[in-house]
Amino acid sequence: MNLSHRITHLTGTGSDGWELFYRARAMAAQGEPVTELTIGEHDIGTDPAILTAMDAAARAGHTGYAMVPGVDALRDAVAARVAARTGVPTTRENVLITPGGQSALFAAHHATCDEGDRALFIDPYYATYPGTIRGVGAVPVPVAAHAGDAFQPRAEDIRAQAQGARSLLINTPNNPTGVIYGRDTLEGIAGLCHDHDLWLISDEVYDTQVWEGEHLSPRALTGMADRTLVVGSMSKSHAMTGSRCGWIVGPQDAIDHLITLATHTTYGVPGYIQEAALFALNAGPELEERVAAPFRRRRALAREIMSQQNLVGLVPAQGAMYCMLDIRATGQSGIGFAEALLDAQGIAVMPGESFGAAAAGHVRVALTVDDDRLGDALERLCNTARSMALTARQTG
Amino acid sequence: MNLSHRITHLTGTGSDGWELFYRARAMAAQGEPVTELTIGEHDIGTDPAILTAMDAAARAGHTGYAMVPGVDALRDAVAARVAARTGVPTTRENVLITPGGQSALFAAHHATCDEGDRALFIDPYYATYPGTIRGVGAVPVPVAAHAGDAFQPRAEDIRAQAQGARSLLINTPNNPTGVIYGRDTLEGIAGLCHDHDLWLISDEVYDTQVWEGEHLSPRALTGMADRTLVVGSMSKSHAMTGSRCGWIVGPQDAIDHLITLATHTTYGVPGYIQEAALFALNAGPELEERVAAPFRRRRALAREIMSQQNLVGLVPAQGAMYCMLDIRATGQSGIGFAEALLDAQGIAVMPGESFGAAAAGHVRVALTVDDDRLGDALERLCNTARSMALTARQTG
Repeated sequence: MNLSHRITHLTGTGSDGWELFYRARAMAAQGEPVTELTIGEHDIGTDPAILTAMDAAARAGHTGYAMVPGVDALRDAVAARVAARTGVPTTRENVLITPGGQSALFAAHHATCDEGDRALFIDPYYATYPGTIRGVGAVPVPVAAHAGDAFQPRAEDIRAQAQGARSLLINTPNNPTGVIYGRDTLEGIAGLCHDHDLWLISDEVYDTQVWEGEHLSPRALTGMADRTLVVGSMSKSHAMTGSRCGWIVGPQDAIDHLITLATHTTYGVPGYIQEAALFALNAGPELEERVAAPFRRRRALAREIMSQQNLVGLVPAQGAMYCMLDIRATGQSGIGFAEALLDAQGIAVMPGESFGAAAAGHVRVALTVDDDRLGDALERLCNTARSMALTARQTG
Repeated sequence: MNLSHRITHLTGTGSDGWELFYRARAMAAQGEPVTELTIGEHDIGTDPAILTAMDAAARAGHTGYAMVPGVDALRDAVAARVAARTGVPTTRENVLITPGGQSALFAAHHATCDEGDRALFIDPYYATYPGTIRGVGAVPVPVAAHAGDAFQPRAEDIRAQAQGARSLLINTPNNPTGVIYGRDTLEGIAGLCHDHDLWLISDEVYDTQVWEGEHLSPRALTGMADRTLVVGSMSKSHAMTGSRCGWIVGPQDAIDHLITLATHTTYGVPGYIQEAALFALNAGPELEERVAAPFRRRRALAREIMSQQNLVGLVPAQGAMYCMLDIRATGQSGIGFAEALLDAQGIAVMPGESFGAAAAGHVRVALTVDDDRLGDALERLCNTARSMALTARQTG
């Protein structure tokens, strides 16, 4: 039986570098010692106080259908949070609660792109981006950010692809690079969105993980609130990855239509999870800082270790829970290096190529194991790189 | 800013009869006494034992990303359940866990229909069906089942619309009619699906609410396992509506692609909710019967009350948590009758027209209030119908 063209072509063809991830998982499952630095997931669970709030809400009877747009109090809390962080007036009517950030990314593209429309995104990118765009029948168009620019995208490169496009998807603080887009970058992006009448879909799920400089939401730039859909989530900020609770913030008209879409795609988010999210947001910055602290600490550790050598480059690690390493001096591709590192040292990192052509020759290190193991793994990674570079010179 | 044509045209134009539902909700919110018989939601919450299992799973650390296809043990349990109930060999590879039945309906149409494809469904229908089909860019094509056939659809009517269609969506036990499709109906449907190479999307979320006859899953008919996607859910069977946990059962190749789609649309279902669902399924038929019992009892009560008059007809109430009443003898439309009933008696029922043209002149009564209130409401409904009929005769 034939399936739809859309679903059978959701992912691109050929190897995408994720084989390494599955190989590492299989090795670990068979009891081999593997240091997994692949996936962006906290090494802590959700705070027990949040789970207590969830359980209390369920036992109080919040087990029936929740309102599809989200529980009023949570929509209000998200609106207040966004308003406080960005200065942009934001109310309940600007907020749709979604079952996680991925669902929000899908819905935002559904709302802005029709079949065959061109949808832009920045390479390197989070792995689901092109498939999410294909999933709504649109055509994903990558625009490369360059290692030489520390992965800040250039507005003129995006502009060159913008003719006839409907949307541009950006992500800052960025996964996989750890880079935070600067004001100049974002103002350039805002300008081209105006000129080409693009929707800006702004994935800001790492907005509480800022180690250097500041996170600027492009929705706060002049005239952008009317054309920006911000994707947010409880996953990274509150270690609630598994609870699938996120949101879209945007113009009321867009949110109204997105609520209708939600009625036909998800039918809302469990009420007790929304109550847990509300509790977590109301717990304030102390809880968020506690969740962010290990990554802040490990990012400092990584900088310290990487500064003791100059073979492997460290992309400026300004935010998010990753470090991107430039391993081109080894003569290897990101895939080749990651495969060799897994074989030789039992250390699993993600090849840059898994996140797009622009990250070739890099590997992404998730800062998701304890400090001692991370430090040891990074030192062994540098040693492996040194051996490889030496071998390359001897045989080259 | 222009949104996509697809999202702005998700729902049809004009009144859909749901105004009454919102008016009743508003009246109730303002403290007016309203007997709400509108929505298919249990008047009990989720069983505390299920909530205890959920809390235990969360506290045991199941708060991180769950596997996108679903937790192995839950996929196994759903497969075993389906195999036991239908006799069709079913394994984990045939099962995708989804965040609720609505999400499964959307995904099933996404998997089978491309932009512009015709997707058939039976009228009367659950309210989201046409919008779900439009949501994947396909064209919803209703096929009327007739009151005179007790709302069993005729295969020849479907066949007349099947040329070039990709899928047919059916729902048995049926919402809104309460009818269970017989073997003859389903064999006719299987035949036309074969002849026109259609996917059959079989919404079986009411399969534990069977009061008369038996539920037959069309996936069990000869040759149908390869072309059927069954939509199931914990919502109705285990009073877990708010937990958003359902599934699709289908051929492995389709499930493989649906897993890829899930990676790009939902990124899975909370692990602790899946553990709760697993606990609930393992609790066995006693729990399911406890959840179903009030509807079984109230359906008998409704039959008893309706048998004492012959003005308002009762569509054979074979399953699900609704009774469909034929009020055409009052001279009113379903909308007119429901509006008048709400005004005169403070009783809210859904106009048949809310579920499609084929249910015109009917109202749907959800059996979702306690027996005494339901009995009283039905008696007052019959009295109102009698008054209307009398007035119509006097003025006619």
